[in-house]
Amino acid sequence: MDNRPIGIFDSGIGGLTVLKEISEQLPHENIIYFGDTARIPYGTKSKETVIKYAFQCIKFLLSKDVKAIVIACNTASALAYEEALKEFKVPILGVIQPGARATNSTTRNNKIGVIGTTSTINSYAYQNSIRALNKNAEVIGVACPLFVQIVEDGWEDTDVAMITAEKYLLELKEHEIDTLVLGCTHYPILRYTLSKVVGEKVSLVNPAFETAKEIKSLLKQKDLLSDKMEKPVYKYFVSDDPEKFRRIGGNIMNKNILSIEKVDIENL
Amino acid sequence: MDNRPIGIFDSGIGGLTVLKEISEQLPHENIIYFGDTARIPYGTKSKETVIKYAFQCIKFLLSKDVKAIVIACNTASALAYEEALKEFKVPILGVIQPGARATNSTTRNNKIGVIGTTSTINSYAYQNSIRALNKNAEVIGVACPLFVQIVEDGWEDTDVAMITAEKYLLELKEHEIDTLVLGCTHYPILRYTLSKVVGEKVSLVNPAFETAKEIKSLLKQKDLLSDKMEKPVYKYFVSDDPEKFRRIGGNIMNKNILSIEKVDIENL
Repeated sequence: MDNRPIGIFDSGIGGLTVLKEISEQLPHENIIYFGDTARIPYGTKSKETVIKYAFQCIKFLLSKDVKAIVIACNTASALAYEEALKEFKVPILGVIQPGARATNSTTRNNKIGVIGTTSTINSYAYQNSIRALNKNAEVIGVACPLFVQIVEDGWEDTDVAMITAEKYLLELKEHEIDTLVLGCTHYPILRYTLSKVVGEKVSLVNPAFETAKEIKSLLKQKDLLSDKMEKPVYKYFVSDDPEKFRRIGGNIMNKNILSIEKVDIENL
Repeated sequence: MDNRPIGIFDSGIGGLTVLKEISEQLPHENIIYFGDTARIPYGTKSKETVIKYAFQCIKFLLSKDVKAIVIACNTASALAYEEALKEFKVPILGVIQPGARATNSTTRNNKIGVIGTTSTINSYAYQNSIRALNKNAEVIGVACPLFVQIVEDGWEDTDVAMITAEKYLLELKEHEIDTLVLGCTHYPILRYTLSKVVGEKVSLVNPAFETAKEIKSLLKQKDLLSDKMEKPVYKYFVSDDPEKFRRIGGNIMNKNILSIEKVDIENL
């Protein structure tokens, strides 16, 4: 048993969708969340830079004495997960492997679409992970860089969202995919629009859900689950202005975010 | 006379449009350009963070012995220019003041629209600068956060660009503006789409052009112009992968960018 918190990080607020899943499946665990809002987004940046940023995030979480770390950001999971496993001793989980496993148990025709940031798609992390589990899978990746900003602006139900989605997803529709991986934490918020564009028969996979299931098994297996029964404590840290995070994050979490602190992540 | 280089910085590649104007109006000046590609964009970040980043950029340029500095980024000009003037002794020019002067000599009906990033518009820097010169000006600011990504994706002539522009500019059209300030270095690339939406009678003001004129007068006035007649030397520095900058920057400059170096801007 271990009552230390779980650490979660993301380039911004998107990772709160992962936190939410974890809090539902592990309701007694304390959580430390870090959002790197001063350097968001990661999805347009190089592997070298994303690894540097991810390592800084992990070191910050370790300074808060976390017992395990979840990389909630798809880009950081795609570009920095393997390197993080080599660098740090603490148990670390990314969203790619859980997402890939969920995808393979969902598809029937083995034709799979993956959407994500430019860096995530260009890394081939999802494509390779899915094919490593299923040699017959045909995986088509499409970078959708406008989606994050559309979500951040609250434009998810506009004609701009619809036309942009139609443009990005055209190739996937032509390939007659039956499964679409939402390979960025912002995309589940576009779920309705995406489903309308690809058609209701296509299953949408949200890796956040599967990641929460896997962190639970991981903690159980390593005997690291908390034995407390009281209400857990969540602490939030960001690298830019806490107020914007409080406002938008509160909407995602459907409750007020009380404890937020600003951290100088570049000079820890 | 002073043959040291002019320093220019921006959050990324957008400032190359300013460099281009300066190189046309001051063809014998050496230039050092810094693009903060590891932390782009600035336009969604807080004033405190943008000031911190701008100061780091200025310190880097000073380490290269520049004789004057141009803040090519509209967001950094809006949020950090005043503070930079107080902090540093080197002559510094932003794009807001030159843009405001050009706007006031352009408008006939004193109804002016300004478009820019969320941070630029919320800072009221353009609105206040224009009204400080012209008490009768009615200035309406609209944040257009999707435009940068649309330009970065090369989507400037698509239906997505058109519909997005129609949504953002609706209020400005209703106010019957006769002048529109392109308050972000990426926006001149959308000029055709923007002009189609607001109508050809509306004048588009590009602050980059006016900024180049003002840096020329400033250097002349302070006797800092170069007296060299040979081809000038341009050196480029970025905080993320130089190759992406080389590729996209080369398109903006219409020539190959040869000398690019990566800089660890956080730990100078």
